[in-house]
Amino acid sequence: MSTLHDRLTVIDGLIISDFGPEIFREMRKGGITAANCTCCVWDNFTETMRNIAKWKGWFRDHGDLITQVRTTADIALAKREGKTGIILGWQNTTAIEDRLEYLELFHELGVRIVQMTYNTQNFVGSGCYESRDSGLSDFGRDVVAEMNRLGILCDLSHVGPKTSEDVITASKQRVAYSHCLPAGLKAHPRNKSDEQLRFIAERDGFVGVTMFPPFLAKGPAATVDDYVQAMDYVIDLVGEDKVGVGTDFTQGFDKPFFDWITHDKGTGRKLTDFGPVINPEGFREIADFPNLTAAMERRGWSAGRIEKVMGANWLQLLRDVWGA
Amino acid sequence: MSTLHDRLTVIDGLIISDFGPEIFREMRKGGITAANCTCCVWDNFTETMRNIAKWKGWFRDHGDLITQVRTTADIALAKREGKTGIILGWQNTTAIEDRLEYLELFHELGVRIVQMTYNTQNFVGSGCYESRDSGLSDFGRDVVAEMNRLGILCDLSHVGPKTSEDVITASKQRVAYSHCLPAGLKAHPRNKSDEQLRFIAERDGFVGVTMFPPFLAKGPAATVDDYVQAMDYVIDLVGEDKVGVGTDFTQGFDKPFFDWITHDKGTGRKLTDFGPVINPEGFREIADFPNLTAAMERRGWSAGRIEKVMGANWLQLLRDVWGA
Repeated sequence: MSTLHDRLTVIDGLIISDFGPEIFREMRKGGITAANCTCCVWDNFTETMRNIAKWKGWFRDHGDLITQVRTTADIALAKREGKTGIILGWQNTTAIEDRLEYLELFHELGVRIVQMTYNTQNFVGSGCYESRDSGLSDFGRDVVAEMNRLGILCDLSHVGPKTSEDVITASKQRVAYSHCLPAGLKAHPRNKSDEQLRFIAERDGFVGVTMFPPFLAKGPAATVDDYVQAMDYVIDLVGEDKVGVGTDFTQGFDKPFFDWITHDKGTGRKLTDFGPVINPEGFREIADFPNLTAAMERRGWSAGRIEKVMGANWLQLLRDVWGA
Repeated sequence: MSTLHDRLTVIDGLIISDFGPEIFREMRKGGITAANCTCCVWDNFTETMRNIAKWKGWFRDHGDLITQVRTTADIALAKREGKTGIILGWQNTTAIEDRLEYLELFHELGVRIVQMTYNTQNFVGSGCYESRDSGLSDFGRDVVAEMNRLGILCDLSHVGPKTSEDVITASKQRVAYSHCLPAGLKAHPRNKSDEQLRFIAERDGFVGVTMFPPFLAKGPAATVDDYVQAMDYVIDLVGEDKVGVGTDFTQGFDKPFFDWITHDKGTGRKLTDFGPVINPEGFREIADFPNLTAAMERRGWSAGRIEKVMGANWLQLLRDVWGA
């Protein structure tokens, strides 16, 4: 294991795995300091509350491995104590249903990163697999303002292009694509064009780079080095201070999960076919995180760049948005 | 009371009043044969189910005044038995939340008319008070197809212009503005342009004309004769076979109700200010329905036209869409 990796604050901007003690042990093996862990995809209010209640039980029962993150100070504490800090995050705003005021409840329970839409249209805006996207709805503008007030990061990874542009413009706080890849390397509805990546960065936004194989040029044949190359592509566009990691690890899940996430609202129309989800060689599992640092070193990145991209940039973004 | 009125099948395409025995007695006084009674506005699944359960209790307890309508034969029966047939209808699709399959449950419980959106954007499309309208969403197309399959009328009164156009084009069944006024008489986001009225009629759709004062040229100073004049305006555009009554009576309600319907999702951003809601002179209350027939006679309408507009056209539309 790289000694550099051990020193780093490692932040993964998106994990959606079959959470539980096994995954928590994997996170510790991988040396992850903090991760944005999804607790709402197609879920409604009650389902999301149940998911969060389950997390509270895990925080109690597995306090040797994980700890809840509400501020960036909690991330620093997790690093010192050798635990993985869990940031509760959403990939959809379905959890608030039609109630703006629910956002404050969820914020108090620890939700700190919220994606505005997931793949298709909701009350807030449109998703990246929707045929048409008229942008942020009027209710969506209220949601962005309330998230700004509370200090919740707006995530745009699965959001439609026009809605993303509107959120970037409307938000008074920095916003992020927490987990995306450049369309310049592979054309795909989920990937972002050079123009989109520049647009968010020019407005002080952030780009977390994913390695989810269906969106990589080489698909399931990609390696961890291809992943770092994709990061370099983004860094060339937006600089090394606004880029981070957002793996999209789906560890422990199989067909029923992928069926759920690839159908509209979980059970409706099929939106996309991922094909086989085999993570890049050398970075197949969460415990392989040290190999990512090694691949960056192999590519000749400076220790400073590695430190930034592996976590320091995320930390700065979260501090800016959360206010602490 | 006009003897013509007594003979007519009178159908009101939209009533949203403070339902209960008082209103049911008013409906009987007014000689209403059947009415589309709203049981979902901003309501979600559970709330709508509770509203329908309340209706089932009323059907049991007030079977001398009202009876549930599931087919047009039920409307004919209501006429023969001297009762008012209640068509359960929605002004929003929030009741199905994100589940297409809920539509069949509601259809089995008797829901027969469903407006696709109410004022603002939902999963299906956009509303008439939304800043932008990209049209029917992909999920919305699934909803239209399922409503077509089940035989539920698509209502577009509060729907945005682009979404309305898309539903008119996508639906394999006839669709309706159940309660609207022409923008040619008063420019208002809720009123429909000549072009829109022609567009729906050319595709065999239907126009129910409302008398809700904020949308009338003379506002609260209007009379029942102004209402009939607005009907004539629509008939001049689309002919006398596709026009009906959709009063939008809000009898028994006061400020809390109007606050609820004029704010996004009931509690959010204010969408519009109605000013005083005073129905046209001569047609202030549901029991005044015979005065509407009298005003049509006063305007020189033939008995044939009166019969069509007061109910026969609605009956034909419902038979076409419901299949029985």
